[in-house]
Amino acid sequence: MNIPSRPVEQVIAEAREFLGDRLSTNQAVREQHSRGEDTTTPTLPDAVAYPLTTEEVSCLLALCHRHEVPVTAFGAGTSLEGHANPVRAGISLDLSRMDRILEVSQEDMDCLIEPGVTRHQLNDHLRDQGLFFPVDPGSHCTIGGMCATRASGTNAVRYGTIRENVMGLEVVLADGRVINTGSRTRKAANGYDLTRLLIGSEGTLGIITKIRLRLHGIPEATSAAVCQFGTLRGAVECVIATMQAGIPVARIELADEIQMDACIRYSKLEGYQALPTLFLEFHGSPAGVREQAETVQDLADSFGGSGFAWATDAETRNRLWKARHDAYWACVALRPGCRGMATDVCVPISRLAEAIVGAKEDILASGMTAPIVGHVGDGNFHTTILVDQDDPTAQDRAWELDKKIVARGLSLGGTCSGEHGVGLGKREFLEAEHGPEALAVMRSVKTALDPRGILNPGKIFRN
Amino acid sequence: MNIPSRPVEQVIAEAREFLGDRLSTNQAVREQHSRGEDTTTPTLPDAVAYPLTTEEVSCLLALCHRHEVPVTAFGAGTSLEGHANPVRAGISLDLSRMDRILEVSQEDMDCLIEPGVTRHQLNDHLRDQGLFFPVDPGSHCTIGGMCATRASGTNAVRYGTIRENVMGLEVVLADGRVINTGSRTRKAANGYDLTRLLIGSEGTLGIITKIRLRLHGIPEATSAAVCQFGTLRGAVECVIATMQAGIPVARIELADEIQMDACIRYSKLEGYQALPTLFLEFHGSPAGVREQAETVQDLADSFGGSGFAWATDAETRNRLWKARHDAYWACVALRPGCRGMATDVCVPISRLAEAIVGAKEDILASGMTAPIVGHVGDGNFHTTILVDQDDPTAQDRAWELDKKIVARGLSLGGTCSGEHGVGLGKREFLEAEHGPEALAVMRSVKTALDPRGILNPGKIFRN
Repeated sequence: MNIPSRPVEQVIAEAREFLGDRLSTNQAVREQHSRGEDTTTPTLPDAVAYPLTTEEVSCLLALCHRHEVPVTAFGAGTSLEGHANPVRAGISLDLSRMDRILEVSQEDMDCLIEPGVTRHQLNDHLRDQGLFFPVDPGSHCTIGGMCATRASGTNAVRYGTIRENVMGLEVVLADGRVINTGSRTRKAANGYDLTRLLIGSEGTLGIITKIRLRLHGIPEATSAAVCQFGTLRGAVECVIATMQAGIPVARIELADEIQMDACIRYSKLEGYQALPTLFLEFHGSPAGVREQAETVQDLADSFGGSGFAWATDAETRNRLWKARHDAYWACVALRPGCRGMATDVCVPISRLAEAIVGAKEDILASGMTAPIVGHVGDGNFHTTILVDQDDPTAQDRAWELDKKIVARGLSLGGTCSGEHGVGLGKREFLEAEHGPEALAVMRSVKTALDPRGILNPGKIFRN
Repeated sequence: MNIPSRPVEQVIAEAREFLGDRLSTNQAVREQHSRGEDTTTPTLPDAVAYPLTTEEVSCLLALCHRHEVPVTAFGAGTSLEGHANPVRAGISLDLSRMDRILEVSQEDMDCLIEPGVTRHQLNDHLRDQGLFFPVDPGSHCTIGGMCATRASGTNAVRYGTIRENVMGLEVVLADGRVINTGSRTRKAANGYDLTRLLIGSEGTLGIITKIRLRLHGIPEATSAAVCQFGTLRGAVECVIATMQAGIPVARIELADEIQMDACIRYSKLEGYQALPTLFLEFHGSPAGVREQAETVQDLADSFGGSGFAWATDAETRNRLWKARHDAYWACVALRPGCRGMATDVCVPISRLAEAIVGAKEDILASGMTAPIVGHVGDGNFHTTILVDQDDPTAQDRAWELDKKIVARGLSLGGTCSGEHGVGLGKREFLEAEHGPEALAVMRSVKTALDPRGILNPGKIFRN
């Protein structure tokens, strides 16, 4: 009899009994699970598991807990911070096949889904019920992954991030126990907020197996607008003024002239120039939408905006927002052979002009190509630093630039991550941002929930 | 030399060195700190401390930690669930003198305050800057207490609860360490959400010493409306229809005919009848406010509402909302010699009619007086059960009624507490609501942060 020698081999042998061929040690499958969309150095997991039920996740975690084998959750593999990279090998837990929409309540405007459901899949399902789910990171990510990383996107300025749109979770703990958090009510003061503790915990405290989401009614009227500016500062100051005026914009997105150039080429946008540009969207009643748009147009005029182009038909709007969501791919297409390293600084809105104009100067000084795009209504912007995979120095130079941009963000009262999470890439900033004592509290929570440290080890905390 | 014999005496002796006469063992002071506005059996703390700074709180906690002496935080003493009752004696930590407003940023629409600031004090301070803080429980509570209990109030339906309006906290841990949580940005994906973990932790995980709040612009236009209904069900169904239509009401509050009768007498409201009544408020542009109000008026008509009375002048509006906020006192005034036991069930909006009509039947069957009032846009309602302090059976009968109303709420997918918190009164429902495993996770978090169990012992968890 062949006795497995390593703990992970024991786990693989036992897990095969209930997962069958949904546990794979195939080289190509392991390579697909070696990192996300990031620029980290890939690590192969020992095996990839594709559970279909909470029970299977629970059995697998109990097994890994017993043998102290690492488990790294994997959704659609779109992480930009190395979350899905199984840096200590073990099991990559691919939840993408748990993709059922279990309940939708039109009356209560909520739904219950499995973690592998993507936001596109959910919105396609909801459309004929007059409902939508607003949180929209720029990728085909799973909603489980969005919960784990506390994702947001272009609608957060009006509808909040995933944090404000999750009502409760079913979670498998490190040792296989299953808990339910939250409630179906719009509010609750019923003990510790485990839902919010799990949101943004990046697979280090538990594995999310069901999600109850709050939904929103499709607005009666929607209009989009695009406005171009002579200077980046003018565009950013228009955003600040709009937010300070309390206009309930649904979306207010920035692309700098480099990003705009990339989008015009990649998405074949006609009629626009390679200039700093704001993309806006307004939701409400027909009269309300008109009123909001007119107010913002007046503001844009006073900051040097021109060509405030309206788009009320769905086709034009969809084309514009698809171009915005494809911004990352448009960047990468600028320089074939490159991967994008995305910075993710978020600052108080009053410091946004300073943060973005400063980042621009850093980029110019670095000599790298790094378009800027941002969810500027929230004070959040990204630079996508193009990292030539054939240039051995490029990764280090990109990293130096990222650190400079983060350091300025922190000095302006900001955070190292608005929406991408900590993962591997932002670990070294957490102590500067939170202080050692708060970080120690986070570690003590980690130890309380995952005493053997099997869940996504190496992420959030530096060792 | 007189050597103190008990640990608490040691704490009192040492704390006197830095608190001086801000540490009191006076009998009257201890009695004032023996419970909140609740009907729990009062317990005297050994001493009451009135710190003025974070450092004093930190020194005191370090001392209590060393001697394993219980510490129960006290704000304005308005808790309805026994939070402020120091059931194991020790120190009552009265934070009401830490009441400075430290910073207000008009540009970023946020502020930094100490925990003893009341919502009235803050809004008075903000008014001339065009800003307001929307979270408004029906009492003169401190904002520290609101954070600790995850409070909300009448505006939550539009502006969210305290949870959505706190950006970050300064917290003193059980052993005296001081941490800062959150950030000044509108969103962040920067590690575990300690802010949300502390919000609603009811003084059991740490003592809040500073709060950064998100503020809102005073709306350009505000209008209020009152609408009376022939039946309770008609009023509730009007609320459900309004919410499902996605109308962004700022407030939508219910009073049943008993509560309305009490309010008419107590607040001398003229022109209203003792009928089930909705109080509404709309915020927005002048045109937007008119549009919202007209839509709700049409809905109210179709559910048998009558006399949709508008109030656009500030004086009439303020009088109406003061009457609403005084509902608890109006109840208590119905039966001199009584205290109110408030139930706090919250259910999914689709089950609200069933929950409220069922509660009404339970009240009738019990023979007790218990007006109903509610933040019904959130699915949250209160019955204020009047407990005759001279009737030895009244407390038990009230408690039986409370349990019945909660049990129905839970069976409808609701929570035992929408906004008052768990405290002593709702402990026994938590296991039914969350399940034993989730409760065990909460306990493990408690142990991780407060290993000696000195912070508000006896609350949230049953032993």
